[in-house]
Amino acid sequence: MSNSFGKLFKLSTFGESHGKAIGGIIDGCPAGLVLNFEAIQAELDRRKPGQSSIVTQRKEPDQVEFLSGIFDKKTTGTSIGFIIKNTNQKSKDYSDIKDTFRPSHADFTYDKKYGFRDYRGGGRSSARETANWIVAGAIAKQLLTKIKINAFTSSVGDIFLEKPYRDLNFNLIESNIVRCPDESYAEKMIQHIQEIKKQGDTVGGTITCVAQNVPIGLGEPIFNKLHAKLGSAMLSINAVKGFEYGSGFCGAKMKGSEHNDSFNTDGSTKSNLSGGIQGGISNGMDIYFRVAFKPVATLLQKYDTITKDGKSIEVQGKGRHDPCVVPRAVPIVEALTAMVLADFYLLNKTAKL
Amino acid sequence: MSNSFGKLFKLSTFGESHGKAIGGIIDGCPAGLVLNFEAIQAELDRRKPGQSSIVTQRKEPDQVEFLSGIFDKKTTGTSIGFIIKNTNQKSKDYSDIKDTFRPSHADFTYDKKYGFRDYRGGGRSSARETANWIVAGAIAKQLLTKIKINAFTSSVGDIFLEKPYRDLNFNLIESNIVRCPDESYAEKMIQHIQEIKKQGDTVGGTITCVAQNVPIGLGEPIFNKLHAKLGSAMLSINAVKGFEYGSGFCGAKMKGSEHNDSFNTDGSTKSNLSGGIQGGISNGMDIYFRVAFKPVATLLQKYDTITKDGKSIEVQGKGRHDPCVVPRAVPIVEALTAMVLADFYLLNKTAKL
Amino acid sequence: MSNSFGKLFKLSTFGESHGKAIGGIIDGCPAGLVLNFEAIQAELDRRKPGQSSIVTQRKEPDQVEFLSGIFDKKTTGTSIGFIIKNTNQKSKDYSDIKDTFRPSHADFTYDKKYGFRDYRGGGRSSARETANWIVAGAIAKQLLTKIKINAFTSSVGDIFLEKPYRDLNFNLIESNIVRCPDESYAEKMIQHIQEIKKQGDTVGGTITCVAQNVPIGLGEPIFNKLHAKLGSAMLSINAVKGFEYGSGFCGAKMKGSEHNDSFNTDGSTKSNLSGGIQGGISNGMDIYFRVAFKPVATLLQKYDTITKDGKSIEVQGKGRHDPCVVPRAVPIVEALTAMVLADFYLLNKTAKL
Amino acid sequence: MSNSFGKLFKLSTFGESHGKAIGGIIDGCPAGLVLNFEAIQAELDRRKPGQSSIVTQRKEPDQVEFLSGIFDKKTTGTSIGFIIKNTNQKSKDYSDIKDTFRPSHADFTYDKKYGFRDYRGGGRSSARETANWIVAGAIAKQLLTKIKINAFTSSVGDIFLEKPYRDLNFNLIESNIVRCPDESYAEKMIQHIQEIKKQGDTVGGTITCVAQNVPIGLGEPIFNKLHAKLGSAMLSINAVKGFEYGSGFCGAKMKGSEHNDSFNTDGSTKSNLSGGIQGGISNGMDIYFRVAFKPVATLLQKYDTITKDGKSIEVQGKGRHDPCVVPRAVPIVEALTAMVLADFYLLNKTAKL
Repeated sequence: MSNSFGKLFKLSTFGESHGKAIGGIIDGCPAGLVLNFEAIQAELDRRKPGQSSIVTQRKEPDQVEFLSGIFDKKTTGTSIGFIIKNTNQKSKDYSDIKDTFRPSHADFTYDKKYGFRDYRGGGRSSARETANWIVAGAIAKQLLTKIKINAFTSSVGDIFLEKPYRDLNFNLIESNIVRCPDESYAEKMIQHIQEIKKQGDTVGGTITCVAQNVPIGLGEPIFNKLHAKLGSAMLSINAVKGFEYGSGFCGAKMKGSEHNDSFNTDGSTKSNLSGGIQGGISNGMDIYFRVAFKPVATLLQKYDTITKDGKSIEVQGKGRHDPCVVPRAVPIVEALTAMVLADFYLLNKTAKL
Repeated sequence: MSNSFGKLFKLSTFGESHGKAIGGIIDGCPAGLVLNFEAIQAELDRRKPGQSSIVTQRKEPDQVEFLSGIFDKKTTGTSIGFIIKNTNQKSKDYSDIKDTFRPSHADFTYDKKYGFRDYRGGGRSSARETANWIVAGAIAKQLLTKIKINAFTSSVGDIFLEKPYRDLNFNLIESNIVRCPDESYAEKMIQHIQEIKKQGDTVGGTITCVAQNVPIGLGEPIFNKLHAKLGSAMLSINAVKGFEYGSGFCGAKMKGSEHNDSFNTDGSTKSNLSGGIQGGISNGMDIYFRVAFKPVATLLQKYDTITKDGKSIEVQGKGRHDPCVVPRAVPIVEALTAMVLADFYLLNKTAKL
Repeated sequence: MSNSFGKLFKLSTFGESHGKAIGGIIDGCPAGLVLNFEAIQAELDRRKPGQSSIVTQRKEPDQVEFLSGIFDKKTTGTSIGFIIKNTNQKSKDYSDIKDTFRPSHADFTYDKKYGFRDYRGGGRSSARETANWIVAGAIAKQLLTKIKINAFTSSVGDIFLEKPYRDLNFNLIESNIVRCPDESYAEKMIQHIQEIKKQGDTVGGTITCVAQNVPIGLGEPIFNKLHAKLGSAMLSINAVKGFEYGSGFCGAKMKGSEHNDSFNTDGSTKSNLSGGIQGGISNGMDIYFRVAFKPVATLLQKYDTITKDGKSIEVQGKGRHDPCVVPRAVPIVEALTAMVLADFYLLNKTAKL
Repeated sequence: MSNSFGKLFKLSTFGESHGKAIGGIIDGCPAGLVLNFEAIQAELDRRKPGQSSIVTQRKEPDQVEFLSGIFDKKTTGTSIGFIIKNTNQKSKDYSDIKDTFRPSHADFTYDKKYGFRDYRGGGRSSARETANWIVAGAIAKQLLTKIKINAFTSSVGDIFLEKPYRDLNFNLIESNIVRCPDESYAEKMIQHIQEIKKQGDTVGGTITCVAQNVPIGLGEPIFNKLHAKLGSAMLSINAVKGFEYGSGFCGAKMKGSEHNDSFNTDGSTKSNLSGGIQGGISNGMDIYFRVAFKPVATLLQKYDTITKDGKSIEVQGKGRHDPCVVPRAVPIVEALTAMVLADFYLLNKTAKL
């Protein structure tokens, strides 16, 4: 509990990184949507391991297989079941992590909460789960044809892309392996990740996401505000430590006379510190937010930790891991954004007579 | 949709600031809890308007009246209904805001989403709603007798309380009207708010919250992570623009070798950049997070805006409003934290055989 | 848990028969519905005690008071809070039932489940709760302007109204106090209830409900079938022991060649043993179902029972109780039917592109 | 919407009879349950087609494949994903039903609701879905080790097993192919089904289910009553037209003085017309209920119907279908009962302090 997300456009998921397959069920996708399967797979390819030199070198095709809910390439209105087979589950020796808690992982908490744990590759706590989200998000994107969602890497470690998103060309996001739509910053970020990687270390970063052409009226009062749901979605991604939208934490330093967004006579606003959301409901302006990712906890260095029995132990980190999750998390942020917007889009159909 | 929060400890609410009453239903509170009604009212008093010179001068007693679910001062296991009467609904003249959209309020979005709106005092979008949360949170606190939850003002505008929470004495939080547990910073903050108030302006700020003695195991994998639920709760508070826990946005600048929390042999950790949560589940260390509040949108200044018909208009802001919401939001942050923890505490009873 | 019903048109309730008030929150009613308050109160009057010689002689006005969600007589799209004050809570002596479990009541099970109970008038298990449902159902009826819902008493004890519903004039339902739309059967039923009442006894009965002009497409596959939700709703009413729709239990005796409903070329069916629902989805034909009510458990006779301490005791039943719940349950059945249909009506807006 | 069932022990499902596979996700099963996989498969074998001469002669192994949530044969507390491959999806010619609505099937309603439908084998409306429920129910049974759940065929057409369940030997249920625990009635039922089958016709029937050793306290007030949830579950099974528990529809004919269940001093009751449930909560007595199944709509006869274009057409029914669903529905009724009880068992852990 709970492995489901969404109220009307609902994804339920299962899967561990080292089981036979991961997968999910999308319940509530309207009937009659003609699916572009290539586009779905393309999103999965953006997330998959082994795609570049700055991500994990694990190789998995991450091929989605749909099992139901689609007929003649169209959604039927019934639940869409899918699986993604785990092709790279090495029958490797886990004796090193079996009885050891890795620092800042979920090993300790899963073990204490459930009494034991599936220790292979982190089990259910593995970020492999996010491939399921990509599938649902890709379908949500196809449902929301007019809305444009673009996420990109806005910082890696101390390297911050110091430009407002309006000055960026989103077409460049996929032009480099770090997914930063500014070539010069991108180069610095890539270089930094490569250095970190050489040290067997990892580094954090942030992703900025912009949703454009969102219709007015998405989001619901009180406990289902659009930004609260976006925040909840983003904080579900492994390694995320923070979420801010519009003016965010900077807004907390401002005065009301600086912060208020004056109206134009057409209802649009002159500034957009609100981040496209007022009272939890979209106002038609660009929605933008920022997500903070901590550095990956798995290091290829020696570190001290404890065993299940509470004994100190020195461990040599090994394996194939991401030195920085941010580049691969870009499509995940987009996918969750699409899922949230799809849910509110459907919910909004019942808002008034 | 949706005016409910929580899965097992669930609050549903209703109410506008200028209706007869606001209120709610708490469903799922276990039977047999002996309630301390004075403690519940005391929490409401911490939130109520008119309590000091730096908050709105509106006067309302905010007296909660329980209607069900309690017998012989004990919860019966059935739903707890309550109301808080609105005593201060002036039958005033709303003609100035009736046909006008105030900038950075919910006026425009509610009107567009629902076709019209209850314009009196902001209607459902009023922060008066948060009094309902205080009631549920106060009961949740009584359910979680061992857990200590302390929120406090950690910044107002540019004035940041530059001390780690461990160096603060939480007993001082209520010793000053801005709810900052450091007297010297508190004075600066109060002074700043008073200056801002004189200008008819408003200012933002942040609240830090610390939950201590939280048992290991609260929080659920994937879409119900403890920090995601806390984030979702905080982002439901009016004016909140951001949420971070543990290392937060700072963590995104760090390296893994700096960020990982090494274990002590008893399972506690030497550092706590994880913020007491790993893999979405509490690990027994202090949970701490920070919430960003934008400046209140209602100014006592002249400003330009538009009417419903899309005409420009100059308005003179008036009324009794908070120059800074942060001091009154402190108990709200605590209340929501308690509700989230109570929900996970109950849910965790079913985690293993 | 759980005091809520419905997914998009959702009612949450609270209240005991001897508390200050009962009440509820309707969440998800679309904005812009102009409410007819007289019609709502009229439905409450159909359910209220003291309305005729064959129901309980308790007197309560059951006046609903709306607290939110309505502005200028129109629903605003936000949650609708309401209360119904308990005016007739006699501060009577409960010592007789305080420590005694009444047979076939909820006394024993509530006490065991929760450790104790609010014994005054049955506490939360009292059918007084159903007044809340009437309010929500009356609003649902106003939302579904074209759908006609008529419930009526189809049997009392052994007296069965042996006519198909198509031969009845629903306008006669309210013409007699037992709510049977056939005068001659109605007289027999009334007489029977009066005899039973003289004996200090009670009697069961059935209600038939017919929903007409239901649009095609309401109901959802698998676990949210229209008839399953109707059944779940009806089985929530106090004293209900059974539910059948269309051919019901009789259908279980039939052959497929007799039972199948042949189509007319316009998509309507020649017979309607399906009861207007196929595959869990309305097909445009009349929906009809039947609900079985056991006799009220409270007798005005002497009976043997046990105390909380497990001692035998003889008790003399007293008070003001219904000799037969069926007449007052007729508007309750209608209210729940309207709530179910309203929920599916809203849900169906998202079924296809 | 909605393809999920249960609140804490939750099953979500997908799948059409002629897709690649059906399957589901069980969310909320407590960690640490050692699974008996043979017992799960044995339940599937009780439901599978082709098992005897009185059921459909279609052959499918219905082999469940678990994909997650289990480690070292124990549940891990995370979601359990599983699939059942469809091995018998003949690439047959569907041209006869593609454009035709079969009477009393879901063809018409699915087509109208969703704009088109997957016509192969009934698509999502196929009873093949119930194999998913068997898997979840078999796990629920293993969670509830002390509770004994026995369902059996209590009538086929006009042949009623005229014995109280207490006089039956449940060990005989599986001793005959119709699953009636009385050999002489079983023979009559089997003979009747065989005759019906020869005619190319079908016949309805009823199943009685008895749950014993259910702990006191399962079920929740108001909208989550134990019997309402059981009813909702049963009414989700294809072809079910009615549900009654305890005295059921017969109870509606009785007087209170006959119907009340007097207590023994140990809290058990002398009679059990309540059916083990009072006020929606189990009282420790046997829970029993009865479910009505209409005759299967697919006949191997000629029949008149209409095409999608509203033209009359005569069709010759063909294929491999059940002449009576009741024998194969027996394990389905048990599975759903186990799921409902497991859900309430978990929920009840949070009922009191």
